[in-house]
Amino acid sequence: MSGAGPASELPFGRVFVGGAARHCRRDGERLLLLDRPAYDPEARAAGEAELARVRVLAPVEPTKIVAVGLNYRAHAAELAMDVKREPILFLKPPSSVIGPGAAIVLPPRSRHVDYEAELAVVVGRRCKDVSPEAAAGFVAGYACGNDVTARDLQELDGQWSRAKSFDTFCPLGPWVVPQPPPASARVSTQVDGTEVQAGILGDMIVSPLELLAFVSSVMTLEPGDVILTGTPVGVGPLAAGQTVVVAVEGAGSLSNPVI
Amino acid sequence: MSGAGPASELPFGRVFVGGAARHCRRDGERLLLLDRPAYDPEARAAGEAELARVRVLAPVEPTKIVAVGLNYRAHAAELAMDVKREPILFLKPPSSVIGPGAAIVLPPRSRHVDYEAELAVVVGRRCKDVSPEAAAGFVAGYACGNDVTARDLQELDGQWSRAKSFDTFCPLGPWVVPQPPPASARVSTQVDGTEVQAGILGDMIVSPLELLAFVSSVMTLEPGDVILTGTPVGVGPLAAGQTVVVAVEGAGSLSNPVI
Repeated sequence: MSGAGPASELPFGRVFVGGAARHCRRDGERLLLLDRPAYDPEARAAGEAELARVRVLAPVEPTKIVAVGLNYRAHAAELAMDVKREPILFLKPPSSVIGPGAAIVLPPRSRHVDYEAELAVVVGRRCKDVSPEAAAGFVAGYACGNDVTARDLQELDGQWSRAKSFDTFCPLGPWVVPQPPPASARVSTQVDGTEVQAGILGDMIVSPLELLAFVSSVMTLEPGDVILTGTPVGVGPLAAGQTVVVAVEGAGSLSNPVI
Repeated sequence: MSGAGPASELPFGRVFVGGAARHCRRDGERLLLLDRPAYDPEARAAGEAELARVRVLAPVEPTKIVAVGLNYRAHAAELAMDVKREPILFLKPPSSVIGPGAAIVLPPRSRHVDYEAELAVVVGRRCKDVSPEAAAGFVAGYACGNDVTARDLQELDGQWSRAKSFDTFCPLGPWVVPQPPPASARVSTQVDGTEVQAGILGDMIVSPLELLAFVSSVMTLEPGDVILTGTPVGVGPLAAGQTVVVAVEGAGSLSNPVI
């Protein structure tokens, strides 16, 4: 199997199996292991595994995670912030990424850590200065993301970077789905089984492809890089012992315990 | 030669030679090529080259660049910003890094791009929650950095990330010097041969080792990661056709044309 062909419609990601992290595509309960990331045209088959016998990791290892603030009108109102005409970008470091099932660790320095459900766009090809019309050709797929944020430190600093950069503050996954979710798809968060946040992708101010184009006007995007597209209304706090699940219709659901 | 031993007092970095990027240490005009970064204990000798016959690259390939705002009192006053009690962190993406001699490209979206001379701290060992007292043990060395900033977009966005993330906005180098520069060392900028910015390291609000400790309280630092320690008073604009040189006494000087 190569990266292209019919199998390229399958979700892809990374798993820990046989003592190592491996790239793969998922075909139901069966995993087609690959010798490099699925979006790499040189990717080749490298064995198989059963989903039930592996640990699922974050699906990509981004060189950068670029996120956007206030990209759903209702969330901007919730935080009493102006909706600017251009997207407000910020970065989360690669060290903040965790996979499904891994624990979000509340840092001692903060007394208020919020979940933020987001659609994550995974870049498939290196690009710079892409037009919105051409952007789809540079996307490997879509996943769930949780832009975990220490709200008190965000307010204290004014700048958002520290508040969003703690280790474990960027859950991603579980799989990258090549097909774009429709505008009607719901983005939602459940805490301990109760829905606490929801919106639909169509309520974004800047669409995922417009956002990729905008980010690429600033910086070169690399394969595996992640763009987080903003969170809808309903952000709220996490407490130790809870389990938070971010779901994006068409892109699966991402569950993480909080400790 | 290994990463340790007497040669480990030599500056290190990366050069382009024989069609490839290579790690090395510099011994005067002679380069001792290495099979991996100089701070890696497994680094082994891999040939030699003459400095005059190579192109010097950015000395490291960081997974993240963590910078601090307003870390010299006079610069904070210059921008009319409060000096907070905790450092204000922000991130620059790996895609913004360039080496000595490479061009800083002014983006069409901005009409006001400033230089910011900075001391760069290069991390040598993976670390998290390091104390200021222990921080020196995790430092590989020191270099010059230029935190190039689109001042108009910084003001427009409120958040600093976009303004500081354009490709070519993080010149680093030319070499990483293992020995810490003294508190009396000058940090300065020359534009076309005229000094336009200067301060001394001892005027920092938070010292480089305190800053490494603070950053490590938020995120895991990886070998090769870079911490930019803030800029002194005297930031100012760059224009196409100029050459900007950042110098840190004891850590060399970093020259980049502006186009």
